[in-house]
Amino acid sequence: MRPTVQPTACVMIIGNEILSGKTQDANLQFFGIELAKLGIQLAEARVVRDDRTMIVAQLNECRAKYTYVFTTGGIGPTHDDITAECVAQAFGVPLELDEDAAARLRRGRADLNQARLKMAHVPVGAILIDNPISNAPGFRIGNVFVFAGIPAIARAMFAASTPQLHAGAQILSAALDVYAREGDLAEPLERIALAHPEVEIGSYPFARDGRFGAALVVRGIERAAVERVIGEVATAMEALGGSPVRTS
Amino acid sequence: MRPTVQPTACVMIIGNEILSGKTQDANLQFFGIELAKLGIQLAEARVVRDDRTMIVAQLNECRAKYTYVFTTGGIGPTHDDITAECVAQAFGVPLELDEDAAARLRRGRADLNQARLKMAHVPVGAILIDNPISNAPGFRIGNVFVFAGIPAIARAMFAASTPQLHAGAQILSAALDVYAREGDLAEPLERIALAHPEVEIGSYPFARDGRFGAALVVRGIERAAVERVIGEVATAMEALGGSPVRTS
Repeated sequence: MRPTVQPTACVMIIGNEILSGKTQDANLQFFGIELAKLGIQLAEARVVRDDRTMIVAQLNECRAKYTYVFTTGGIGPTHDDITAECVAQAFGVPLELDEDAAARLRRGRADLNQARLKMAHVPVGAILIDNPISNAPGFRIGNVFVFAGIPAIARAMFAASTPQLHAGAQILSAALDVYAREGDLAEPLERIALAHPEVEIGSYPFARDGRFGAALVVRGIERAAVERVIGEVATAMEALGGSPVRTS
Repeated sequence: MRPTVQPTACVMIIGNEILSGKTQDANLQFFGIELAKLGIQLAEARVVRDDRTMIVAQLNECRAKYTYVFTTGGIGPTHDDITAECVAQAFGVPLELDEDAAARLRRGRADLNQARLKMAHVPVGAILIDNPISNAPGFRIGNVFVFAGIPAIARAMFAASTPQLHAGAQILSAALDVYAREGDLAEPLERIALAHPEVEIGSYPFARDGRFGAALVVRGIERAAVERVIGEVATAMEALGGSPVRTS
């Protein structure tokens, strides 16, 4: 796909538990799907440890490089929750107690001890992001959106943030399954891909009921172009005896 | 955890399908678990698009930064499989037809057309990695290990590569579940964490059967230290009324 002016995004998944294998990430795929709907290209994702130096360096690199950065994880009350302080450091501003955030936490829980108050500290200049599930808010500063790692909360915070995002042309797709081996379909597929730089074509092999096949996906921002190309792909796969079946 | 001399690793997941949300990554957690067993710290993971410039830049950054880099994806026969050429470019060497790789592909399939022959091209100086599932080999060059994206094949290639990895002290862990809210357990937990820099302590909140709790995990390279600290954590959680239960 030759993007016109498509906003771009990077997702930063923060937390040792993802890298140690304790926890399976359950947010990246969600962001990929939702950002595509908004016409924002998810250009990259990074998974980083709870390490101040690393988080700050990567935040600064990614916020300079992409239209938006979305972080997940590390905004709870425990000692290993260091995302807010890292974001503050990356922006060169102090963390401060946000009275609105403290009020939200008070609504959820009377016992607002020091640990919970930590969740009401955000970088100076940040705007709170609503958390309808457990009150402790996320926040946005500049082009960086800071969400919780718990999937239900990350999803709610993303939903609360979408009105602030500049949408691009929606990324549309069409797909078909073909029962042919990638080694056999690669040449006709490449010819089509070379002839149509206005779309992006992907091939994802699978084995199903003992038969080999591939999901072929055409993505682009113009419906007519996507349909034209998936039609060409279907014809080429038909010629190959691959019995293509449209799946989307 | 204050690592002694622990080898480090970075996983690079290559493929538009992960970032578009079409496919849920199923390799990162596997690498996290297996590398921890080998005492290799998975320090970072990156998910990148099928974009030559980006892949080459990230490969060069990561192979300089970490002991090992493991890539998944992009080594098939189709036009969107560009990992091998990117690795060659990153190392500044040409791709060449590897006769051994071609022989392996021939064993799997008589019809060795141009597309399949592409899978027998590896960077000059690379060593093949066995693929017991579909013949097309992965390869290693320097500290970069290039695997297929299909989980069963990625796992087999990792298994074939482990004899080549310098293991560190195994990363051990102990964990307990506690029925207390993170906001209540954060302060005693932080005191323990500060007193024991020789281990790393993580807190991962959950909601289960309508009750809030957290999994508390202690990780380190000395069994005695890990056990001592998880014992302290259990005592502190007991005092809090959190009914801690050892889970590992």
